[in-house]
This record gives sequence, C-alpha cells and structure tokens, in this order.
Amino acid sequence: MSVSCNTESPKAKEFDSNFAHVVYFWLKNPDNQEDCRAFEASLKKFLSTSEYAQTKFIGQPANTPREVVDNSWTYSIILTFPSKEVQAKYQQEPVHLKFIEESEHLWEKVQVYDSVGL
Amino acid sequence: MSVSCNTESPKAKEFDSNFAHVVYFWLKNPDNQEDCRAFEASLKKFLSTSEYAQTKFIGQPANTPREVVDNSWTYSIILTFPSKEVQAKYQQEPVHLKFIEESEHLWEKVQVYDSVGL
Repeated sequence: MSVSCNTESPKAKEFDSNFAHVVYFWLKNPDNQEDCRAFEASLKKFLSTSEYAQTKFIGQPANTPREVVDNSWTYSIILTFPSKEVQAKYQQEPVHLKFIEESEHLWEKVQVYDSVGL
Repeated sequence: MSVSCNTESPKAKEFDSNFAHVVYFWLKNPDNQEDCRAFEASLKKFLSTSEYAQTKFIGQPANTPREVVDNSWTYSIILTFPSKEVQAKYQQEPVHLKFIEESEHLWEKVQVYDSVGL
C-alpha cells in the first residue's frame, strides 16, 4: 500500500555494509489510514533530509506465511551508515529528533536491531 | 570479529527495495569459536552461490547501548530481492536447503522479518 503525499520519497542508495540500522514500528492504530498517512509523511520527510543515513528503505510486512516470520509490525526501515560513529550522529540529528517528536504518539512499540558487517 | 576461511565473502550489491528479507540467528553456543567459524563458512558459501539473493549482508550485533535495541542475537543477514516471487524461489534454492541442513544444529532460534518496499 502506498499513499500520495507531498513529501519526496527517499532514494535507495548502495548498501553500506559497515553498519545496518533496522527498526520495526508497531502503530497503535495500524488500520487507521490517517495515522498511516501521517506516519509515512513524517518518516519520508525525515529520511529525505537526513544527511547521515545512506540506504533508506521503508517497508511494510510482506506477509510471507512461514512460522519463523514476524508479520505483526506496521512499518520497517533499513538504513545503512559508513560507521558506528556516523550512526551515533544520526541518532542526535535534528531532523531525527523532529520525526520522533512528531510521530511517537502514533506507535506503541519500536524494536531496533543494529548490525556491524562481518 | 571476522574469521579466516576458504570461502569467498559475498559481495554487497545495490539495495533492491522491492523485497527485503532480514533474519536474526541465535546460536546455541555463541561463544564457541568452532561453532561460529562453521556457521560463518556455511553461510558465506551459501550466499556466494545463491543466484537469487541480491544485497548479501552478514552482520553481528553492534552493541549500541539503547533500551530499544536487541543485541541478544548472534548473526544477522539482510538480503534483497526484485520481487516476492523471487524470494519464494530462494527459499527452495538447493544451496539454501543445503545451508539449513549443514547449520541448523548450530542455532536455537531464528527470527525473520520480510518487508515489501513502500
């Protein structure tokens, strides 16, 4: 499902295997179109303007029907960074803090997995 | 931590935002070097020969110290595909089934998140 909004979609970039930051968001009202539109617009605005995030993937559950697959979340993001230090800067980036301020009332749970490449 | 082995490391490729397949593995003995080396060798051999997986990221926990971050797993993979259908083919790929057969005795839990791009 995709919604139309006035924000520019972030572009996928070459995957940087130094650091992958993956987040799953569970919205409070995943079936509420207004909440979804507001979340997507805020997230796209943020990622389009972040100067630190490389690969900027926004996803929704593919609903692959296997027991080991978690499909209970509402949105995912996969971002990559050239280093752990740059990801730390991203955490404090003003556009990131603004996104959290704008949208945290929409989610009930966030789960993060941070990986460094082998 | 990186180990030396005779297998070729898979190359990162352009991120395909159509389908992202993310897996976290919890090894039974994450501190056992022999188990880790065997798992890594089997996984790298598999990913180097898979004809369907695009981006082929193998990671370990970055141990970022935040409450929302899960650092309890041992290895992660982030793979991308041009479509849900191609990912379904990957699930049945002989080199994938061989990897599971070789290595499933090493892990105690697998958690999968499959995303389609917005």
